[in-house]
Amino acid sequence: MKRVLVTGANGFIGRCALPFLQAAGYEVHAVSSQPRPAQLPVVWHQVDLLATEGASALVAAVKPSHLLHLAWYSKPGTFWTAPDNLRWVLASLSLLDAFATHGGVRAVMAGSCAEYDWRYGWCSEQVTPLGPSSPYGKCKQALQSLLAAHSQMSGLSWAWGRIFFLYGPHEHPARLVASVIKSLLQGQPAFCSTGEQLRDFLHVADVASAFVSLLDSDVRDAVNIASGIPVSVGEIVRRIATALGREDLLRMGARPVAAGDPPLLVADVRRLTEEVHWRPRFDLDTGLGATIDWWRDHL
Amino acid sequence: MKRVLVTGANGFIGRCALPFLQAAGYEVHAVSSQPRPAQLPVVWHQVDLLATEGASALVAAVKPSHLLHLAWYSKPGTFWTAPDNLRWVLASLSLLDAFATHGGVRAVMAGSCAEYDWRYGWCSEQVTPLGPSSPYGKCKQALQSLLAAHSQMSGLSWAWGRIFFLYGPHEHPARLVASVIKSLLQGQPAFCSTGEQLRDFLHVADVASAFVSLLDSDVRDAVNIASGIPVSVGEIVRRIATALGREDLLRMGARPVAAGDPPLLVADVRRLTEEVHWRPRFDLDTGLGATIDWWRDHL
Repeated sequence: MKRVLVTGANGFIGRCALPFLQAAGYEVHAVSSQPRPAQLPVVWHQVDLLATEGASALVAAVKPSHLLHLAWYSKPGTFWTAPDNLRWVLASLSLLDAFATHGGVRAVMAGSCAEYDWRYGWCSEQVTPLGPSSPYGKCKQALQSLLAAHSQMSGLSWAWGRIFFLYGPHEHPARLVASVIKSLLQGQPAFCSTGEQLRDFLHVADVASAFVSLLDSDVRDAVNIASGIPVSVGEIVRRIATALGREDLLRMGARPVAAGDPPLLVADVRRLTEEVHWRPRFDLDTGLGATIDWWRDHL
Repeated sequence: MKRVLVTGANGFIGRCALPFLQAAGYEVHAVSSQPRPAQLPVVWHQVDLLATEGASALVAAVKPSHLLHLAWYSKPGTFWTAPDNLRWVLASLSLLDAFATHGGVRAVMAGSCAEYDWRYGWCSEQVTPLGPSSPYGKCKQALQSLLAAHSQMSGLSWAWGRIFFLYGPHEHPARLVASVIKSLLQGQPAFCSTGEQLRDFLHVADVASAFVSLLDSDVRDAVNIASGIPVSVGEIVRRIATALGREDLLRMGARPVAAGDPPLLVADVRRLTEEVHWRPRFDLDTGLGATIDWWRDHL
């Protein structure tokens, strides 16, 4: 019997992960600080993981064999430097410890491309040096070290999925793809940078399914969760505008490129494809199309 | 008024740091889980830092401007893989948080050469990739990330002294230099590996004084605390034997070199010498001589 505890279950990725977990045969126990969003065939636990005792009692009661830990502080704009990053490291380690104590077998947690030293651009798990510049990236890196150390001592199987750039339904409207779609659907101009930066974008449902495949494999250590395909920010914005027939509303170059924003940030996805044997369902056009459709229904 | 809280004050390095802190003009508050070892002109706080509340109450009462955090689990043989490594990460972060909350200005903590990826051999702070293979090294690396993240958010000034190999009075008798000196002084054979591995050794009093210089500087980030001079383990052992006139008791090659033991592990000490402006007092012969003298009085 595979029983998974999935945290951040009401979040951007977590909500997409639930059906993939069920399809993979898991008994799904979803954890969120939020109430159950709708009638879902999963067990829902409304627990604040930043209150340690709650997490420990929950794990003792559920006794999951698998842990998919996606919860973190993620508010756009402030998550890079929020003190909650430190609190999430502690809460995650407490959760992990409880999980191992109560018979847990395999833990997969969400890392970030922000752990890499961005001067290298090309991010390969076993080659590219880590060197996070933000508190968020430093805390994610610290948690990966602690997870690895814990596993070395406890024997727990583990992996660490490094997320790159993502988009899709339910994205926070302050983020790039969501904000451009919303503006153009509302007939308002979209103010963008020159958009020459190359990034690695993946539809959130693919991110979620990759996490579930990683959880269901026995691949260890850090694995990039990404497309491996460089695409410029300008290209994404222009594809959205083309799909909506509103190229006239694009204001490319109206915003400065953020200081320290690297020209290229792209994942090596060989571990994900060759070891986890995972493939994406969406390419950029179908993924953006599905996202536009969702926003049409949710404005 | 500079007021320092120094943890691990009864430890191998900590006990040596106390006079240097006083000489540098600090009001010294020493913390240890052990009772005060002798009449010392410092304020002694017997507190178990692994019990978080104690640390927080202590910091609130002392309100130190400086923190020199040397305490950690360090029992020879078991420290590499002890679960206490994880507990020390949490305790150190709690201590740091309390320190920042109560007006702390600058924190220096003890890191380790075990954080580096040892395949590189030459360990330069801003070049050599980290890649700890042990839980001890992973936990030290994690704590450095957390310290850096905390400082980025709280504005705390910080540095991280990476210790290499050390020797001197009060060393645990299971460790290399102490065990060879003891054996030869007692007329017993010393069983060693072939001893070709090149290492970076520093007398513990120099390690302690380097930490105090680092604390008293405004140099930030990781700084190697080491000699920068490669010396083979065999050379150290032979110098001890020569000093004691007991070359006949050396059994070189009687023990295997540990698996994964790298041929060279040496620090780049330019940050320590050119930015902290620190120089060692002991060279290898005077350092070993002083250590032998100490052991003669303590067998």
